[in-house]
Amino acid sequence: MERILMLNGPNLNRLGKREPEIYGTDTLESIENKLISIAEKQGFALIARQSNHEGELIEALHDAEDQHFKGVVFNPAAYTHTSIALRDAVASISVPVVEVHLSNIHAREPFRHQSMIAAEAIGQIAGFGVYGYEMALNALIKHTKGNDHE
Amino acid sequence: MERILMLNGPNLNRLGKREPEIYGTDTLESIENKLISIAEKQGFALIARQSNHEGELIEALHDAEDQHFKGVVFNPAAYTHTSIALRDAVASISVPVVEVHLSNIHAREPFRHQSMIAAEAIGQIAGFGVYGYEMALNALIKHTKGNDHE
Amino acid sequence: MERILMLNGPNLNRLGKREPEIYGTDTLESIENKLISIAEKQGFALIARQSNHEGELIEALHDAEDQHFKGVVFNPAAYTHTSIALRDAVASISVPVVEVHLSNIHAREPFRHQSMIAAEAIGQIAGFGVYGYEMALNALIKHTKGNDHE
Amino acid sequence: MERILMLNGPNLNRLGKREPEIYGTDTLESIENKLISIAEKQGFALIARQSNHEGELIEALHDAEDQHFKGVVFNPAAYTHTSIALRDAVASISVPVVEVHLSNIHAREPFRHQSMIAAEAIGQIAGFGVYGYEMALNALIKHTKGNDHE
Amino acid sequence: MERILMLNGPNLNRLGKREPEIYGTDTLESIENKLISIAEKQGFALIARQSNHEGELIEALHDAEDQHFKGVVFNPAAYTHTSIALRDAVASISVPVVEVHLSNIHAREPFRHQSMIAAEAIGQIAGFGVYGYEMALNALIKHTKGNDHE
Amino acid sequence: MERILMLNGPNLNRLGKREPEIYGTDTLESIENKLISIAEKQGFALIARQSNHEGELIEALHDAEDQHFKGVVFNPAAYTHTSIALRDAVASISVPVVEVHLSNIHAREPFRHQSMIAAEAIGQIAGFGVYGYEMALNALIKHTKGNDHE
Amino acid sequence: MERILMLNGPNLNRLGKREPEIYGTDTLESIENKLISIAEKQGFALIARQSNHEGELIEALHDAEDQHFKGVVFNPAAYTHTSIALRDAVASISVPVVEVHLSNIHAREPFRHQSMIAAEAIGQIAGFGVYGYEMALNALIKHTKGNDHE
Amino acid sequence: MERILMLNGPNLNRLGKREPEIYGTDTLESIENKLISIAEKQGFALIARQSNHEGELIEALHDAEDQHFKGVVFNPAAYTHTSIALRDAVASISVPVVEVHLSNIHAREPFRHQSMIAAEAIGQIAGFGVYGYEMALNALIKHTKGNDHE
Amino acid sequence: MERILMLNGPNLNRLGKREPEIYGTDTLESIENKLISIAEKQGFALIARQSNHEGELIEALHDAEDQHFKGVVFNPAAYTHTSIALRDAVASISVPVVEVHLSNIHAREPFRHQSMIAAEAIGQIAGFGVYGYEMALNALIKHTKGNDHE
Amino acid sequence: MERILMLNGPNLNRLGKREPEIYGTDTLESIENKLISIAEKQGFALIARQSNHEGELIEALHDAEDQHFKGVVFNPAAYTHTSIALRDAVASISVPVVEVHLSNIHAREPFRHQSMIAAEAIGQIAGFGVYGYEMALNALIKHTKGNDHE
Amino acid sequence: MERILMLNGPNLNRLGKREPEIYGTDTLESIENKLISIAEKQGFALIARQSNHEGELIEALHDAEDQHFKGVVFNPAAYTHTSIALRDAVASISVPVVEVHLSNIHAREPFRHQSMIAAEAIGQIAGFGVYGYEMALNALIKHTKGNDHE
Amino acid sequence: MERILMLNGPNLNRLGKREPEIYGTDTLESIENKLISIAEKQGFALIARQSNHEGELIEALHDAEDQHFKGVVFNPAAYTHTSIALRDAVASISVPVVEVHLSNIHAREPFRHQSMIAAEAIGQIAGFGVYGYEMALNALIKHTKGNDHE
Repeated sequence: MERILMLNGPNLNRLGKREPEIYGTDTLESIENKLISIAEKQGFALIARQSNHEGELIEALHDAEDQHFKGVVFNPAAYTHTSIALRDAVASISVPVVEVHLSNIHAREPFRHQSMIAAEAIGQIAGFGVYGYEMALNALIKHTKGNDHE
Repeated sequence: MERILMLNGPNLNRLGKREPEIYGTDTLESIENKLISIAEKQGFALIARQSNHEGELIEALHDAEDQHFKGVVFNPAAYTHTSIALRDAVASISVPVVEVHLSNIHAREPFRHQSMIAAEAIGQIAGFGVYGYEMALNALIKHTKGNDHE
Repeated sequence: MERILMLNGPNLNRLGKREPEIYGTDTLESIENKLISIAEKQGFALIARQSNHEGELIEALHDAEDQHFKGVVFNPAAYTHTSIALRDAVASISVPVVEVHLSNIHAREPFRHQSMIAAEAIGQIAGFGVYGYEMALNALIKHTKGNDHE
Repeated sequence: MERILMLNGPNLNRLGKREPEIYGTDTLESIENKLISIAEKQGFALIARQSNHEGELIEALHDAEDQHFKGVVFNPAAYTHTSIALRDAVASISVPVVEVHLSNIHAREPFRHQSMIAAEAIGQIAGFGVYGYEMALNALIKHTKGNDHE
Repeated sequence: MERILMLNGPNLNRLGKREPEIYGTDTLESIENKLISIAEKQGFALIARQSNHEGELIEALHDAEDQHFKGVVFNPAAYTHTSIALRDAVASISVPVVEVHLSNIHAREPFRHQSMIAAEAIGQIAGFGVYGYEMALNALIKHTKGNDHE
Repeated sequence: MERILMLNGPNLNRLGKREPEIYGTDTLESIENKLISIAEKQGFALIARQSNHEGELIEALHDAEDQHFKGVVFNPAAYTHTSIALRDAVASISVPVVEVHLSNIHAREPFRHQSMIAAEAIGQIAGFGVYGYEMALNALIKHTKGNDHE
Repeated sequence: MERILMLNGPNLNRLGKREPEIYGTDTLESIENKLISIAEKQGFALIARQSNHEGELIEALHDAEDQHFKGVVFNPAAYTHTSIALRDAVASISVPVVEVHLSNIHAREPFRHQSMIAAEAIGQIAGFGVYGYEMALNALIKHTKGNDHE
Repeated sequence: MERILMLNGPNLNRLGKREPEIYGTDTLESIENKLISIAEKQGFALIARQSNHEGELIEALHDAEDQHFKGVVFNPAAYTHTSIALRDAVASISVPVVEVHLSNIHAREPFRHQSMIAAEAIGQIAGFGVYGYEMALNALIKHTKGNDHE
Repeated sequence: MERILMLNGPNLNRLGKREPEIYGTDTLESIENKLISIAEKQGFALIARQSNHEGELIEALHDAEDQHFKGVVFNPAAYTHTSIALRDAVASISVPVVEVHLSNIHAREPFRHQSMIAAEAIGQIAGFGVYGYEMALNALIKHTKGNDHE
Repeated sequence: MERILMLNGPNLNRLGKREPEIYGTDTLESIENKLISIAEKQGFALIARQSNHEGELIEALHDAEDQHFKGVVFNPAAYTHTSIALRDAVASISVPVVEVHLSNIHAREPFRHQSMIAAEAIGQIAGFGVYGYEMALNALIKHTKGNDHE
Repeated sequence: MERILMLNGPNLNRLGKREPEIYGTDTLESIENKLISIAEKQGFALIARQSNHEGELIEALHDAEDQHFKGVVFNPAAYTHTSIALRDAVASISVPVVEVHLSNIHAREPFRHQSMIAAEAIGQIAGFGVYGYEMALNALIKHTKGNDHE
Repeated sequence: MERILMLNGPNLNRLGKREPEIYGTDTLESIENKLISIAEKQGFALIARQSNHEGELIEALHDAEDQHFKGVVFNPAAYTHTSIALRDAVASISVPVVEVHLSNIHAREPFRHQSMIAAEAIGQIAGFGVYGYEMALNALIKHTKGNDHE
């Protein structure tokens, strides 16, 4: 079965424990399970990884390429706004990447409005909470199937 | 039947005629018809409007409120980056608005990275072409149904 | 009877329906009527116009000149901060213009602190709610009567 | 009788002696007397103070609080644009403050467009010369009477 | 006969009535007539439009494409400096556009030095008054004739 | 015969040898000859000078004054964007100067959008290639003849 | 007994009367007394001064030098962010100065993040309320005793 | 016994080996032992961790929450100025955090004046060398005991 | 005898006690005496004042006007760079003012490069130590005598 | 044999697989082998490390000091532009470091023009591809041998 | 006889012919003669040079060193604000340089407020017209004589 | 024999006489001779030129093209940071250019961090003193020989 990577960045392992007014009450594990099940229905194996380490996220992206993943649903969290290294990692692989954010980063502090990653991703989804991951997954699958949406 | 507004801003009436490498080859009419049909399947009447006039877009948002629309899928196009008046219009209505862009605005010229609208919208979708409208519509319907995605 | 124009910009037609904690609960119509009556007591006919269209506001200013109005009470709303075209329109007429804002724009988001219009107006009044229109009207009449207040 | 403070900042003691094309020919004393008389007609005692010292202006604001003044008509002059200490002083008292400027500061040098004070005042009036003080006094009295203009 | 559009933006309908030290004493009508006659001598029909509405200017550019105009002489006036929508409109048509300004915008206020339009136009002419339109028309005709001037 | 100076700045001696996609294939000599002949037809002697030295360009402008030239067609090339000394030189002479650029500098790198010279020139022409010199020459002659185009 | 100066800047005489959610409910007098008693236990006489006048604060620093104080606990309040004169005053004395702030200035408005004073002080303490003065006093005494903490 | 975390960021393992004129001659181990002993005297177990890895620091903060620590004395070192991820980590836990710096960061290079962490910490201490850790520990214990110093 | 004011700003009373490598070893008193004697030789009475209070400096400038001084040698020290109030005070008097600085402010920290005062002074002298006062005095006397040096 | 460290930062393990038009087709392993052989010829053992983790790079620099390496050839890749922690690490060791970049970073996106590391390195080499490592190695060896090139 | 160089930059050869309201009516030659005579009286030979070429000014400074001049009175004119090369030239010689400007550059356009040269000069004199050269010469001679004015 | 140009910019003729702590004690002549000899060993004739004139440097680059040089080792010195004209000159020739700086410009004043030239050069070498020229020469020769280092 074709694989898709769901990759989550720093502090997202705290989901459900942290600032529910911003991030909701689902835990990362429950979200991952939900996504795995949605992917499966469409014939994809979703592999979920989370790391608080910039270096591990970089390597997860490299691995996605080496292991022939079909795409990456990527929430770089706080690294979104500062990491040139993650930008370069996304640029260095041919696997398509969709950037997703739980909160509407464009409505928060100014330093969260800019994404270093976006310039190398297919697109960006922000503000739809957990459902945003679903949107990203579907967009990725659609993209993978060569549909005309670009 | 509950209604949803699909509102498109300046130059989007030229879709399909303009820079296909950025915006694709679908015409606005074909996109509107596609969305109308998708909305209908989910039990919503989608009303599509386009205007090159900032004032008309403001009034379309006002009308959405007055006519009890359930939500707005809004592509403010070039006005995204400069229009405080559209931001105020979105703020002045209680109807939820989802901001959508065909291209990945965060990967284009710096003056297209910032959105004046986003701070008052539920969320933003950028870079998925025509399929982005579908994503926005689904997100809006999900939001309307009071689902947990926020 | 000498005429004065009361000109209101984008979204002000929503007054009374929108964010009452910022803008109060009066509707635009009730404010206009109040001002008409105040003007009348001082011997002036107040003509009230509102538009969400930058172009119509420009033309309303042109008309004020052509129709020999004695002055303009102007709330440019969101266009205050971005419209060079309205600044040029105010500069292009000899009719005196007083700029008025319901809320204290200098205490809101930074992008609302700057006025493109003010440099061409007699003065600016901000933060006094509906009463600000009264202040503007009186200042204009006083100005018209050639008093020494400048 | 309820008291209102009219507080003038640096160099305003030179009024009538200085740059009449900007500030007019009235002396500060004559303006103070005019305002005292206007206030009296409305049943208020207006106390006028002027100081070139930032520290004295701060203390005058403190005193207004301690002595139960009903409001302050405040022209911070050049300190408007730089004094965080005066901003804090206005914030530290519950007496309402109206900011007034003789000239249209928004039409002068860029460093005069920004007010450090405004964020803590009720509102700002600029460009109406001596008559601006009258406007400020009236707005303050109206405010004090609990009218609906906010 | 091949057609060329002469398109004028906001406030230019006031030409001849406004700030003659900047814009001269010709009225827009007289300028249009002059240009029509010059165009005619070179075998082109010049169609003149003016609008204070950004949306109408956008649509005039769209129309120029749809109606197979050979070129556009465009003075976007105050919209020059802020309108991404007009920039996109120029980009969305294949008809060549020459940008023209009556005054030397590079010698005026800093906010008039930058053009949003220029990046999508053939070239820019500024500072030559009414004669600038003539220059623009000739440059356009020369361009249309496939001459070597680029 | 009245004289006009055609003054070209740094690197323009390389014209025809350099980046033809930006600057075309004409050599400077052929352009100069073309302009000399055009000027002659209108009764002017065009003297062409080129220098890569800022100091020589300054002195050429001084000479134009001392030798009673009627005007200068000036392409300051790269010095356009940085030379206050050339700006002062243009300001220090009463001979009218028209600034011309082969490429549309407003569509190139941001550091080429600003002109230090423009504020002291009659006007600026950019983007019309070699033909731009012709436009500049004609505008200068028209200006010299006291026509109404300002 | 060796003396230490506790110097408080503008508006701090209002402590306990002002914005308790930011500054707590202690009055300045009670804080001064507390510090006097803590200092005494360690064998130091603490002299407390407060002024709203920048000039008096400057002179208090000068006096600390002239009267051989052992150190200064200094809360420059609003002058922290703007006063080069106080920075120079701290630089002009050899008495060590510890900068202290009741609130966490780095978590407030951006204009409160920068300190003009810090570059000339030993160190800065912010966010610990009244206890911060105690910390500052102890740090100063430790510093005075020549301990190794730097 | 209640536990407190002392968390040190990048390069602090080099203390005592590096730039003694800035950071002193104590090694990190000796400082940790000193702090452990001070904490013990006040009835707290101090656990010391150091990491050069942003990810490990994030996780140490998460652990402090999960393991019911009473507080964190945190020197984020170079990550202070750039790490939004550490800011989010501090925000994501309810354990109070005190930010401490050995040197007076406000007196060093401009890029060290700003702290990304401070907005989510109780307070910040900078410039007191090793003694600053003691100050931070005491402030934290005082805070933990519910004293009135905020 | 005609009088000239020598006015010194904050911290200059510390001269000779402070940072001799920047400001030299002369005390303010010795400098004042030197200047008094130099002035006397040229037939002028030099009155020397120093204040650390912005307000007193403002009033000293006002007094110079009221008492018909012939000129002011003014070293505003740290207020040079921030005080709009002193700028306004200089603008509000007709007495000519020469700005002088002991150190070369243009070679020090960037925030000392800009002068708020200079735009209203005759000229500025910086970097010549005590001798700079002499230069300023002579320039003022020369100016007073109506010489041609401007 | 004396040892030299060749240290490569994030994504450089992808060399040869990634954007060959920018980075060439050599793999990191082949480059490392080449350098090892070149170093050996000059009597040095070159130890090659690569990491995508900022923390590991910091520790590799620490280790170079502790293990008495003679120098470091360092390509910090994307961390060059943002990592104060790596800058501090370079500053914290006495081993000389040469900064090298495969591509000409000064000719790429603006955010790649600035190096946080360079201020603490001996020098920087950029744009010479793989050969740049050779240059860096030779410069380091020359430096180590105490030659006069600084 | 000891020699002093009086060095004038671009466009100053036009003095007396240019903008007399800014620069006065003296020609450069008359000023040079005046200065030569003043210098002579004090026992110095003043050598005057002017150039519009940055390179010649650099070399004149080099020559001053090689020929053992005692000092340079330098008016870099427009190069003041942009020339790092002249700054380096002043830094590269041990001959003291005094910077002088005819007009008060600090009261002109913002781009004339900053001096690249000042950081390497003894001091700066601006705004005193021709007399400023005299002041500079005297300051230089005083400096040369080892007086205490620094 | 193939020729290579070694081109040095302003003030470099002072090498060995100037700030040896930054630039070393070698004279330009001795460096040139060293490079000539190194080039010769590799079969190239190295021609050395130095100029303080921007214009001459431009022309030296033009000449390198016209005379079929194989490459240029270019130290633009102070012009590096400001000269668009030199950037254009490098762009206008097909001869490869290597940019070299004696000092580590990235570790000096901020205005020396940016290079206008680098975007058009092969690469940049900074901080290796005289040896940097050797590195540049070797890199150029390697480049010329078509090696794989890019």
